Amino acid sequence: MAQFEVHGYAAQDSSGHLAPHTFTRRKAGPNDVVFKITHCGICHSDLHQIRDEWGGSIFPMVPGHELVGIVTEVGKDVTKFKVGDHVGVGCMVSSCGQCDACDKDVEQYCTKAVWTYNSLDEEKQPTYGGYSTFMVAKEKFVLRIPESLPLDGAAPLLCAGVTTYSPMRYFGMTEKGKRFGVVGLGGLGHMAVKFGKAFGLEVTIISTSPRKKTEAIDVLGAERFLVSSDKEAMKAAAKSLDYILDTVSAAHELDPLLNLLNVNGKLVLVGIPERPFQLPPGQVIFGRRLVGGSLIGGLKETQEMLDFCAEKNITSTIETISIDDVNKALERLAKSDVKYRFVIDMESLHRSSL
Amino acid sequence: MAQFEVHGYAAQDSSGHLAPHTFTRRKAGPNDVVFKITHCGICHSDLHQIRDEWGGSIFPMVPGHELVGIVTEVGKDVTKFKVGDHVGVGCMVSSCGQCDACDKDVEQYCTKAVWTYNSLDEEKQPTYGGYSTFMVAKEKFVLRIPESLPLDGAAPLLCAGVTTYSPMRYFGMTEKGKRFGVVGLGGLGHMAVKFGKAFGLEVTIISTSPRKKTEAIDVLGAERFLVSSDKEAMKAAAKSLDYILDTVSAAHELDPLLNLLNVNGKLVLVGIPERPFQLPPGQVIFGRRLVGGSLIGGLKETQEMLDFCAEKNITSTIETISIDDVNKALERLAKSDVKYRFVIDMESLHRSSL
Repeated sequence: MAQFEVHGYAAQDSSGHLAPHTFTRRKAGPNDVVFKITHCGICHSDLHQIRDEWGGSIFPMVPGHELVGIVTEVGKDVTKFKVGDHVGVGCMVSSCGQCDACDKDVEQYCTKAVWTYNSLDEEKQPTYGGYSTFMVAKEKFVLRIPESLPLDGAAPLLCAGVTTYSPMRYFGMTEKGKRFGVVGLGGLGHMAVKFGKAFGLEVTIISTSPRKKTEAIDVLGAERFLVSSDKEAMKAAAKSLDYILDTVSAAHELDPLLNLLNVNGKLVLVGIPERPFQLPPGQVIFGRRLVGGSLIGGLKETQEMLDFCAEKNITSTIETISIDDVNKALERLAKSDVKYRFVIDMESLHRSSL
Repeated sequence: MAQFEVHGYAAQDSSGHLAPHTFTRRKAGPNDVVFKITHCGICHSDLHQIRDEWGGSIFPMVPGHELVGIVTEVGKDVTKFKVGDHVGVGCMVSSCGQCDACDKDVEQYCTKAVWTYNSLDEEKQPTYGGYSTFMVAKEKFVLRIPESLPLDGAAPLLCAGVTTYSPMRYFGMTEKGKRFGVVGLGGLGHMAVKFGKAFGLEVTIISTSPRKKTEAIDVLGAERFLVSSDKEAMKAAAKSLDYILDTVSAAHELDPLLNLLNVNGKLVLVGIPERPFQLPPGQVIFGRRLVGGSLIGGLKETQEMLDFCAEKNITSTIETISIDDVNKALERLAKSDVKYRFVIDMESLHRSSL
């Protein structure tokens, strides 16, 4: 297969350090879209994978699954995109296309899904992500970024955005006027707040960090802020929420969160702590509550989310960095020191690759 | 308040033994319905409460919350019922009528709900259940038993029936052709199988008792039977179900059940084990599954369920006993030795009360 050279930043081992790395991608096949990457978000899972914290990491690893840019070439059978279009790729670049999950437009649950990086494609070749200059992907896995959205703020929509939007839609957490709790105010949480506001929900942020309160209310527009360690406040807020989206992947307890839910309340998990939760059965039975889970979103729904963001003028709140600062950003991210998502301006890499 | 004498069987203490007991009920107020009790089902929760296993039991206790019979008197403002009608009372006899739960027709989640027995009514007087000759209840809490249903087989619908029907409706576990697992084949489980068949689902019973297999398939019409301790069979059945209703209140694990669910699968708990379940977050996130819970059903839905049963000719499979055998039946029930619900023919009590 014909190939071309791409510049990127890669981890060579699990030390967590990224450095310049040159690799190849396939040249555009008939169904492929090639785009110049202009921006790529830094997701917390990038950190886990470059450090091999989930096991099975493939090195060298070029991370990044929130990549956006401008189409430079399309294969002859591509119909949806043309040169110059604003596009992006999220967490997936392929799936089997034939299973029940693919049939239902939830390709993320296809057991043969190929992830954008740290995964093996159909030819058993490793995939490389968005911390790089150019991307090649099958048309089906390329999303259209509406022209009205800035590319940098749109990049995190491809993972953080759809990860929060999709469960809100699927589990019916969108009814205007309902009370919506968001647990954790990071990359995912701040997107959940924005979607909550867009759906007309009354938003409560539940966080371990009292210092986040002012900005959460003044800037993000949340109605209430609960400090999860404040037992009195948590008790006083019993039954005060209809929905909760829990974005926290550090160990924590479900019971105090379930206490916040009214009858018919819904708690959906999108963060994955290592240990199982304790679920007291009475917490779901006495009140007909549910605990659900959700992983990113399918292609169709990701496009729907992007279009919704264009309509509502929603983007991620970001800190833009140069590729030279990527290691510093990863260190800050490990300490949750970011408001609320780092996005790499890839122009810095294009320049250094000249 | 004017009263009249009623004969019943009561527990005088937590020994678990029931004996004849005479007590009084209020005479019919303007909104009350009085009925002669013809049958009363024996629910497993009767056993827990007469033994004070949940704490706070009120003695003497006349158990029974699956009572049916024939109207003998109606208050002057009663409009829905007349003398001679077939009626029943389930788990509740009152609720506040003003809260969010009452508003939504889920009176079972009203924090002021008054239970049919072992509860205090608005006047702080203990309530007495259906192991007795006559019942007086507010019209709103009286259900119409369709004439086409036999009263004995209909009695358990008022608790076992609605407890399984309601979550199937609320959580959307009714789509024709879907694969439905029922965990535990007792009073609740056998009703879930019947509703599953009525909704056109393909039913799998998951049980600890291989001896129940033949009857489950030949008589109840289940398509498959899984022995939960058979690890190979459970593994082979991975992802083979769309819905699971878990009726077991003994301690057990959720993880092997969640493994049985396909993408978008739903597991709903109606049994309440004492200890919390372990919920591995990946089991709901990778597959967008949910774990829900549900408690009996509201009045409106209970009536809907009864009408559905009349339409589909569904009743509980019962063993009818005389009131004299109630202690023997309770002992057998403690060993799960019943197919599938004991129902007391209250004529035996009416005769002895003459």
